[in-house]
Amino acid sequence: MKKIIAKDYGTMSELAAAIVLEKMMESKRVNLSLTAGNTPLGMYEILIDKLQRMDFDRSSIHYYNFDEVPLVGERYGLTMRALKTAFYDRVHIDDGNLHELTSQNNQAYDQKILQDGGLDLIVMGIGTDGHFCANMPGYTSFDRETYAVSFEEGDEIYNNLLTLTDKEPASPYVTFGPRTVLAGKQLLVLAEGKTKAEIMKAVLEGPITEEVPASILRTHPNVTFILDEAAASQLSE
Amino acid sequence: MKKIIAKDYGTMSELAAAIVLEKMMESKRVNLSLTAGNTPLGMYEILIDKLQRMDFDRSSIHYYNFDEVPLVGERYGLTMRALKTAFYDRVHIDDGNLHELTSQNNQAYDQKILQDGGLDLIVMGIGTDGHFCANMPGYTSFDRETYAVSFEEGDEIYNNLLTLTDKEPASPYVTFGPRTVLAGKQLLVLAEGKTKAEIMKAVLEGPITEEVPASILRTHPNVTFILDEAAASQLSE
Amino acid sequence: MKKIIAKDYGTMSELAAAIVLEKMMESKRVNLSLTAGNTPLGMYEILIDKLQRMDFDRSSIHYYNFDEVPLVGERYGLTMRALKTAFYDRVHIDDGNLHELTSQNNQAYDQKILQDGGLDLIVMGIGTDGHFCANMPGYTSFDRETYAVSFEEGDEIYNNLLTLTDKEPASPYVTFGPRTVLAGKQLLVLAEGKTKAEIMKAVLEGPITEEVPASILRTHPNVTFILDEAAASQLSE
Amino acid sequence: MKKIIAKDYGTMSELAAAIVLEKMMESKRVNLSLTAGNTPLGMYEILIDKLQRMDFDRSSIHYYNFDEVPLVGERYGLTMRALKTAFYDRVHIDDGNLHELTSQNNQAYDQKILQDGGLDLIVMGIGTDGHFCANMPGYTSFDRETYAVSFEEGDEIYNNLLTLTDKEPASPYVTFGPRTVLAGKQLLVLAEGKTKAEIMKAVLEGPITEEVPASILRTHPNVTFILDEAAASQLSE
Repeated sequence: MKKIIAKDYGTMSELAAAIVLEKMMESKRVNLSLTAGNTPLGMYEILIDKLQRMDFDRSSIHYYNFDEVPLVGERYGLTMRALKTAFYDRVHIDDGNLHELTSQNNQAYDQKILQDGGLDLIVMGIGTDGHFCANMPGYTSFDRETYAVSFEEGDEIYNNLLTLTDKEPASPYVTFGPRTVLAGKQLLVLAEGKTKAEIMKAVLEGPITEEVPASILRTHPNVTFILDEAAASQLSE
Repeated sequence: MKKIIAKDYGTMSELAAAIVLEKMMESKRVNLSLTAGNTPLGMYEILIDKLQRMDFDRSSIHYYNFDEVPLVGERYGLTMRALKTAFYDRVHIDDGNLHELTSQNNQAYDQKILQDGGLDLIVMGIGTDGHFCANMPGYTSFDRETYAVSFEEGDEIYNNLLTLTDKEPASPYVTFGPRTVLAGKQLLVLAEGKTKAEIMKAVLEGPITEEVPASILRTHPNVTFILDEAAASQLSE
Repeated sequence: MKKIIAKDYGTMSELAAAIVLEKMMESKRVNLSLTAGNTPLGMYEILIDKLQRMDFDRSSIHYYNFDEVPLVGERYGLTMRALKTAFYDRVHIDDGNLHELTSQNNQAYDQKILQDGGLDLIVMGIGTDGHFCANMPGYTSFDRETYAVSFEEGDEIYNNLLTLTDKEPASPYVTFGPRTVLAGKQLLVLAEGKTKAEIMKAVLEGPITEEVPASILRTHPNVTFILDEAAASQLSE
Repeated sequence: MKKIIAKDYGTMSELAAAIVLEKMMESKRVNLSLTAGNTPLGMYEILIDKLQRMDFDRSSIHYYNFDEVPLVGERYGLTMRALKTAFYDRVHIDDGNLHELTSQNNQAYDQKILQDGGLDLIVMGIGTDGHFCANMPGYTSFDRETYAVSFEEGDEIYNNLLTLTDKEPASPYVTFGPRTVLAGKQLLVLAEGKTKAEIMKAVLEGPITEEVPASILRTHPNVTFILDEAAASQLSE
């Protein structure tokens, strides 16, 4: 485990972009899983800028979404919409290189990743409740590969999802499980801001427990955490 | 995770020897952690036989012991004695390539492994209580790197250790923690015989919990379990 | 580069089988290129025996042929016929896991290998003229990826091919070029017998030159040469 | 092989810095070989800026110089002086993490690299004569590991060295050979400006020959070339 404290959000974004860029520039097929959400937006701006200033064959860079909440009546779910807006639609990616996770294909997704050579890098944020991908406390077993979680109008999950979108979420949502993530060759975890300080202390220094799902990420042989100073402010080490 | 059912103990030993031999034959420095105990004895016999029939530069093969119980009045502890008898003393290994774990050096051992380039392969057995290395249920936190466990004459640990040796064990014993093991590049876990059938079902198919320490090994990105048919007899999958 | 002298052909075959088996047992997709010819026959017998005594999911093991000589009126060429007889047909391999190289697909083969994640291991023999795969002295540029070589009835190539088969060879033959091979993650080169002693001295200790095509293999970051004592008998080091 | 055309020198420097930074942020020991000369100066400025804005344990990052020209009466040679000025002295590096190459230790340097776990990344420039490290046309064999080249006052080498320094060069100079470089896990080659256009065409598209030493770098399984548009202006592909 490597823990890096970046001076500020801009620095964190630059460092994260460097890790993604390096993978893109390797002379082999590269399978990436990138995250939606606010934390990586700075990273995407830097990546887009750099990709516009470089010319190379990108046909061997593949993208695998790690979670999805379908939306009623919409072609794309919450994650794909966010990733298309923030990154995918702003750089050229062939359709064959974009691997959507859906409630239809999730049961075969781990096998697909295996046959495609495994994930080289998974970039994730952390929720204030300690979730990663959509592995929520109370709904997470460290033992799971990619899985679906059903919900109904009016229950806790449904209400939480409503805070993320003005569209109607459709059950079930799907996500990489902990074992899917831990099978990746390299993990990058980003956390920024004061609101993440408390949970990052739990994730990095507390017990490894399903109550704080992201705590398991510490056990991976090649995981790097990048925190800005605010998110790192409660760490003791 | 890869799970291999070997027809019998001899086959399991051959397959395990193949994995160790392959590492030895790679054209780079190789850092190995091998296990004492009865399970790997067949593997060592095969390795010794094969090494006697091959001639090559072994100066870049290094060995790191993963646990130790010191013995009063003895130069070597329980693990080193067993490994010397079963393997180390029967093939030529330069002193500089043998890295003992002791109650003196254990606090700096993870840093040493890091500086030495990390462990390429860790070969382990599983106890009937689900322990790996000396991570015993009730004494294990998934969060630990290499650590020491103190004990006193007459307590549970002491009495358990007495069943393994006719010498006097000296507190503390030392062991790689779960995070030390999970930081290895490749893990190989061996289990043989009917007495391991129940625990292997828990290790491979039960919840990932500190009560069954070896259950955490499933999360590693490159772990192979080899079981003989008896040890696999209670698996449902 | 690692150079291993095996006491005899049986030992060489066991060591080679160990390297292939280890790859098969890794918990990830594995892309293998295996060789036809006489040298690996002992290795295949050992592999077949061991595979019959182990039970595991082989769906992520893929095979990529590295050369081919088409035969007039035959479904399979020289290499595929030999590999099916020696190995493929004797162990269960799904059609989707067997990747034939042909005079139709050779121009797209390097791109296919790239998209499939690259080759994890290439096992090769060496000809008495220093060729590897079908990179023959006089027809080899170190710069080539997979390529085709045309020939005509009665010319040197044609006459050489006739010594290998009682069928009629069809132009062109196809082969991985040096760069295809050098792009593999691990290379294993086998040589046995007195008839290989002179060329192995050139391959391992002479200048790196297209006149001895296999001399370039020494430059690979993870290449292991296994020679029996006869094939190693002229080495000075 | 991956070939990236960067819009300009600034972009090339950013991309190169990203590759080096990514290695620095991995959670394992990292062995780097960096280059002196003018081409990487932009990269070092970016690295220094970014390192000042990040806080993390750098004790597992090691630096190995890949060539050296001793200077009469000076503690450090040409390469070390340049690297100290451009990078080493401007970021904190413990003495134990800086591995000088000298005319005293060069014969044991490949063995040292092997025991230290191998080089994870080698960053190099290309001379207008096609040299890399100090592998000069006319003095290079693809077969060499680290080696020394003697010279005398007034000969061609001596005169060339005088153009690089106002100090007195001392024979012999030392350099990684082609095999040392090709044994690295990842190679990064930088070329900028119109004066490199012709040689880069030879390096990337001409024959692989000792007359253009850097042409051999194309054969490495994980090599990335970054060229600015001027250096790429004569490429046909």
